[in-house]
Amino acid sequence: MIDNPRDLETFLKDFAAIDGHKVLVHGGGKIANQLSAELGIEINLVDGRRITDAKNLKIVTMVYAGLINKNIVAKLQSRKCNAIGLSGADGNLIKAVKRPIRKDPSSGKELNFGFVGDLNEYSVDANALSKFLELGFVPVFSAITHDGNGQLLNTNADTIASVISASMVDQYDTSLIYCFEKQGVLLDLEDESSVVSFINLKKYKDLQLSGQIINGMIPKLDNAFDALSKGLKEVFIGKADALPLLKERTFGTRLTLK
Amino acid sequence: MIDNPRDLETFLKDFAAIDGHKVLVHGGGKIANQLSAELGIEINLVDGRRITDAKNLKIVTMVYAGLINKNIVAKLQSRKCNAIGLSGADGNLIKAVKRPIRKDPSSGKELNFGFVGDLNEYSVDANALSKFLELGFVPVFSAITHDGNGQLLNTNADTIASVISASMVDQYDTSLIYCFEKQGVLLDLEDESSVVSFINLKKYKDLQLSGQIINGMIPKLDNAFDALSKGLKEVFIGKADALPLLKERTFGTRLTLK
Repeated sequence: MIDNPRDLETFLKDFAAIDGHKVLVHGGGKIANQLSAELGIEINLVDGRRITDAKNLKIVTMVYAGLINKNIVAKLQSRKCNAIGLSGADGNLIKAVKRPIRKDPSSGKELNFGFVGDLNEYSVDANALSKFLELGFVPVFSAITHDGNGQLLNTNADTIASVISASMVDQYDTSLIYCFEKQGVLLDLEDESSVVSFINLKKYKDLQLSGQIINGMIPKLDNAFDALSKGLKEVFIGKADALPLLKERTFGTRLTLK
Repeated sequence: MIDNPRDLETFLKDFAAIDGHKVLVHGGGKIANQLSAELGIEINLVDGRRITDAKNLKIVTMVYAGLINKNIVAKLQSRKCNAIGLSGADGNLIKAVKRPIRKDPSSGKELNFGFVGDLNEYSVDANALSKFLELGFVPVFSAITHDGNGQLLNTNADTIASVISASMVDQYDTSLIYCFEKQGVLLDLEDESSVVSFINLKKYKDLQLSGQIINGMIPKLDNAFDALSKGLKEVFIGKADALPLLKERTFGTRLTLK
């Protein structure tokens, strides 16, 4: 909803109203693509996935960490939500590893995703992050991290959210909420009423085996179950404008391990 | 030096080596102008000064708060300097007032600088900022602030530095160091050896009266004496690459009130 000012405003109002410590993670691919197009910068794909070359890294750093991040922060501040906009480089909060160049096993071709950062369970400095929470700040992360050697890295926002939430479980009862453009995990992509209200790991495997989970959803669900396996209480996946339903726990699809 | 990677690297090495609590404030006008030109966005001037319309505000938010800020932070982190990149909106640290539209007394024309933020002595949340310092962070501010009502504002970096340093005097012995492209305050713009090594308020007024201070230097010096009048220990103005001379207190021009 980031590229629609009215939807973003509604979402930030609802986000500001959530009780307790909270962290927001955002991307902004559509706006980055618009800027790339305006500047005539090509977006190259490898294996169906976007390559972050030096020019595209500049674009996402400007758009995610600058334009979108600071506008979200200013809007949350206007709602008395004490937001602080961060990248993974800030305070060394999220350290990533540049994705290694590897050979595609099927084609034998080299796969080089460029300046893309991968995360692991040691990536987030949970102690430093919890200091921000205890001081009353609401961290707002753009999907930019660094490698600790001066290199910024483009990093998947869903993965950042998963890894951050997993890093918080020792200190807090933690939930992860994914907001996207659908009402939840759908059995039929054309039918918004086909939301699965609850999925545990067993059901997820069954749904995958029977081919009822569409490909595009799998990375998000894998990220969700990754976090659950690390001790997260629950994950919700649903449509941004339905966020108030979280209070009644009827927001989108709820996921737990068992 | 921001637009020259090697000069920036040298400066950040020297900055990282400075002892004690420290705050960095940066702009990035040249890089912003380059991006404006690439996007075909006009830069309009009023009264010789740049107007920040909505499109230019987007540009400076992307370039200052995104591209430059996060690259500086990542580079400082690689030098074990625990930088955290901030705008004035983050943590509500610097609240500005949008510059009012006013009539030019001489021409009678309306002067509208657009989304430009002016600061006053209440703009900086000194308590919040000192918490970052006490936690061991090195705040790196881009020249972007907000009005508290959701609007980002383009704000003069020299003024931000002046107002931040003045806000710290109750808690710390504070010095302000301006880095620019000259060796210091020069009596002859063409002669880098004409640096005035020391200026107090009386000498500043004398130099102004005798026309020996060039126009471009006056806002910087006014900002410096503003901070000094609020209790700052001293101000230095000099060339970025000479920063190590601060240790011997022979860096550029030193300014004090008396």
